[in-house]
Amino acid sequence: MSQDALRDTRFVLQQLLQAPAVLAGLPAHAEVDAALIDQVAEAAHEFADGLLAPLNASGDREGCHLENGSVRAPTGFAWAWSEFVEGGWPLLACHPDDGGQGLPQVVEAVLHEAISAANPGWGMYFGILHGGYACLRAHGSEELKARYLGDLASGKSLVTMALTEPQAGSDLGLCRTRATPRGDGSVVVEGTKIFISGGDHDLTHQIVHLVLARLPDAPAGSRGLSLFLVPKWLPDGTRNAVVVERLEEKMGLHASPTCVLRFDGATGWLVGEPGRGLNAMFVMMNAARINVGLQGVGAAGAALAQAEDYATQRAQGGVPILRHAPVQRLLAQARAWTEGGRMLALWTALRLDQAHAHPDAAERERALREASLLTPIVKALLTDQGFKAVSDCLQVFGGHGYVSEWGIEQRLRDLRVSLLYEGTNEIQALDLWQRRLLPDHAQAFAQLTTRLLQDVASPWAAAATQAAERLLTALRNVMDADVPAGLAAPSALRGCGLVLLAALWARADAAAVGAADDAFHRRKRATAVLFFTQLLPELETLLAQLDALRADPRAAAATLALAAGVTE
Amino acid sequence: MSQDALRDTRFVLQQLLQAPAVLAGLPAHAEVDAALIDQVAEAAHEFADGLLAPLNASGDREGCHLENGSVRAPTGFAWAWSEFVEGGWPLLACHPDDGGQGLPQVVEAVLHEAISAANPGWGMYFGILHGGYACLRAHGSEELKARYLGDLASGKSLVTMALTEPQAGSDLGLCRTRATPRGDGSVVVEGTKIFISGGDHDLTHQIVHLVLARLPDAPAGSRGLSLFLVPKWLPDGTRNAVVVERLEEKMGLHASPTCVLRFDGATGWLVGEPGRGLNAMFVMMNAARINVGLQGVGAAGAALAQAEDYATQRAQGGVPILRHAPVQRLLAQARAWTEGGRMLALWTALRLDQAHAHPDAAERERALREASLLTPIVKALLTDQGFKAVSDCLQVFGGHGYVSEWGIEQRLRDLRVSLLYEGTNEIQALDLWQRRLLPDHAQAFAQLTTRLLQDVASPWAAAATQAAERLLTALRNVMDADVPAGLAAPSALRGCGLVLLAALWARADAAAVGAADDAFHRRKRATAVLFFTQLLPELETLLAQLDALRADPRAAAATLALAAGVTE
Repeated sequence: MSQDALRDTRFVLQQLLQAPAVLAGLPAHAEVDAALIDQVAEAAHEFADGLLAPLNASGDREGCHLENGSVRAPTGFAWAWSEFVEGGWPLLACHPDDGGQGLPQVVEAVLHEAISAANPGWGMYFGILHGGYACLRAHGSEELKARYLGDLASGKSLVTMALTEPQAGSDLGLCRTRATPRGDGSVVVEGTKIFISGGDHDLTHQIVHLVLARLPDAPAGSRGLSLFLVPKWLPDGTRNAVVVERLEEKMGLHASPTCVLRFDGATGWLVGEPGRGLNAMFVMMNAARINVGLQGVGAAGAALAQAEDYATQRAQGGVPILRHAPVQRLLAQARAWTEGGRMLALWTALRLDQAHAHPDAAERERALREASLLTPIVKALLTDQGFKAVSDCLQVFGGHGYVSEWGIEQRLRDLRVSLLYEGTNEIQALDLWQRRLLPDHAQAFAQLTTRLLQDVASPWAAAATQAAERLLTALRNVMDADVPAGLAAPSALRGCGLVLLAALWARADAAAVGAADDAFHRRKRATAVLFFTQLLPELETLLAQLDALRADPRAAAATLALAAGVTE
Repeated sequence: MSQDALRDTRFVLQQLLQAPAVLAGLPAHAEVDAALIDQVAEAAHEFADGLLAPLNASGDREGCHLENGSVRAPTGFAWAWSEFVEGGWPLLACHPDDGGQGLPQVVEAVLHEAISAANPGWGMYFGILHGGYACLRAHGSEELKARYLGDLASGKSLVTMALTEPQAGSDLGLCRTRATPRGDGSVVVEGTKIFISGGDHDLTHQIVHLVLARLPDAPAGSRGLSLFLVPKWLPDGTRNAVVVERLEEKMGLHASPTCVLRFDGATGWLVGEPGRGLNAMFVMMNAARINVGLQGVGAAGAALAQAEDYATQRAQGGVPILRHAPVQRLLAQARAWTEGGRMLALWTALRLDQAHAHPDAAERERALREASLLTPIVKALLTDQGFKAVSDCLQVFGGHGYVSEWGIEQRLRDLRVSLLYEGTNEIQALDLWQRRLLPDHAQAFAQLTTRLLQDVASPWAAAATQAAERLLTALRNVMDADVPAGLAAPSALRGCGLVLLAALWARADAAAVGAADDAFHRRKRATAVLFFTQLLPELETLLAQLDALRADPRAAAATLALAAGVTE
């Protein structure tokens, strides 16, 4: 099923992004050549298709069970994890010092997409393992690293992020969980955390919780938050006081236990500096958000393969429904979004690799700035559109799409959370606007698109350039008119996303022109046409929306508040 | 919770559509004055909120069960039905000859919205009762009417539509179910039907199945289809050979049994003329599709009330999240779509009443033409946007929106099917294009919008008029360029919908200007501003899409097919 995604991944990495050449410039990854990338990508899809996909529907049906204080994952999940560990997959992007293979993020991104396509519930257990590993590696004491890092690298332990509390969601500064030093270097953690994915399970014996909590006398707000490592099992082999209070019932991802965890005087150790808890987690944030974006791409790609298959085999009106233009439109648009999302996400992951490993400090900084600019767009746009694309693919099935046996409705349920977690998509838009666009008057964004569109031998390059210029003018007008961030941010994020996709589709078209004249490349070019003629026109709407805000920002803000029900 | 919807319903019916004055011109409904409409609308919302809403979450959790060949509905559902019957609700729009109250469709539409908001699963049992009644009333023999019509009117019996077969979905002409005359006026029905909502249950003793089947020697295709009445219980008190083979597992609407029914030599009787089965069902189609559109409005209205409530009470960053512009945007846009949808659906229902009951035949015909033009738009646009609005309301809850206890994710799951049944939204677009726009070069649509925008005292009237003119030009250009229907239809339907909403919002604004300067009317006007400045701009995209199709229709068709995966 994922042959289509795999073929396109090869196109994006090799032909479009020229990943082998880029990685050759990074000493840590200089040996990652085209053959190695191909080999890992193929093996990742093979593992995902062969072992994980068969457990997707059964995992959804069976769900997770809390029994005697412990969580039992669906049948087969622990076995699949042991196979995954056996295959060395958790080690993929870990540092060779820790026994890892030291492969770049961009290759791990391919693995994340393949897993999200095959079994997103199972993927939740793995999702933040590398982030937890990287966080501990960057900020943990030597003692903590000696005790936990190796097992995280190998996948012998899994990890959670325990951030959210009932009263503290988007605003983590409201966290109340307390950490009281014992005097022996450890702390006693007390408080309740919610939405802890993989808070308990039977895939691994040990689970390492990374917990945001407040030391005594810590200031209010996010500056009073520190990060602590709280293991399920203490070094002396006794069970730590981490209690699973409840599993949440959810719309989807039934195979992934979302736990309410009570830290009931649990023992933990500080990670990083006191009061710098959020900072310690930054190291995992960009990659985590790119991976969430890839959940959108993975789900959409898998739904697309299913829907195309169905449309080819299902006949109505005397022909396969694939012959009907409205069905073609659903499929082709889903494809344009999926392949566009894959380009954007993998490109961002590659920039992140450059940010980590480029020999030149200035290049590292520029790459990090760009990756940070791209990341909220990847997260929000690719999950918004992933959801839309899966819904459109479901639509291809007619009434059958609503019935569980086809498996497509599960994809829609499973994916919905991606618009919410790792920062809601509204928060991504605010982050982009306030921290990436406003401070430099969209200068970095302008440079990025200009560079992306330099010397692109495609008839679409001019359309992409014009789109970029029009958006930039609109964004700057809105900034100059002091439009409140919350008003402008959603249209701005979508506009930036569309323009970046336009640039990438122009480059993809150029790459396809220069390649063999085969079915894959002809279809790639047709999909580019579809993007430019039917999807990029959404920019017209966004520009009109921004223009209306600019015309009278105060009236727009007052009207919006009134329509939303603010009374005073 | 539904006070907000009820207040707006009163605005739409009384202030915007002037329903009492319109109905006064229809002899059958001349006594339906403002007070009566108010009273029924209030009682409908009271019933829905009081009896049905409390069974919504439990019905989803418990689901339906097939036991010993019979279906058991969730706890409380049968009781609620008996209360509904007791209250005389099924009789609302039935003819006084059958013991009904003879109220207009537009009033029954209010009931449908209220039920869809409170408990869409329960609503499925009721959904097509009136349609089945109307079909039998119009086409049944005197004998069948004498036997079944009274019980359908009173709600003592319920009804199903047994149309779809495994190989025959959008194309009913592929139906294979056979009906063989016995010679005594009855037929023997053999075949399997799928997707039969309420195919069996314990709300009523009797269930009347309306079954599409083929008489011997019937021609192939849809002209060979006849309609048959097949009761669960035969007149002699024995059980008919209608077997529930399976209940489908679905994404949502777990409280409504979706049955695979095997007609295993069941006894039935012809309804209407041989070979005119689809025609016999036409009488129920417009109303049924308007009701599906109202499912979108009802779900969105209920989600909106929940999300506003949550946003008012949930504080992050030191203030209720209702103070944050991105949250306001989600809520205000959902409101603009919901209230717009309500205007469009109730207006269409009122036109349907005129089509049935106007004393002047020419007026009846004009009203029917208009209602038939509006119906596919109501069905597709209001379910598409209802789904989007519910999803946006879910987004307001952050991570909590994904958790079942808040009840919002159920709304999204329950509503998804509305984009599929009663003809997929893609089929609605084709219907609109091929049967309502193309034949008269969009003349009727032009007249409709012109009349709607005559003498509208709102500053937005000009924007709506301009939007209508631009769309009309684009549609006619596309027609003149012979763009294939399937390519143009989706953008055309959305464009027509947006233009109609623009006209209605301009009228709503004018009505609000002329009314008391209170919180409701100030908010209505603010929502109109939001519609014109942030939602109507979508038309820019649609016009650009249509224009790209017009530029080279053959290339557009070839590109689309290629991108969708058609190979040859």
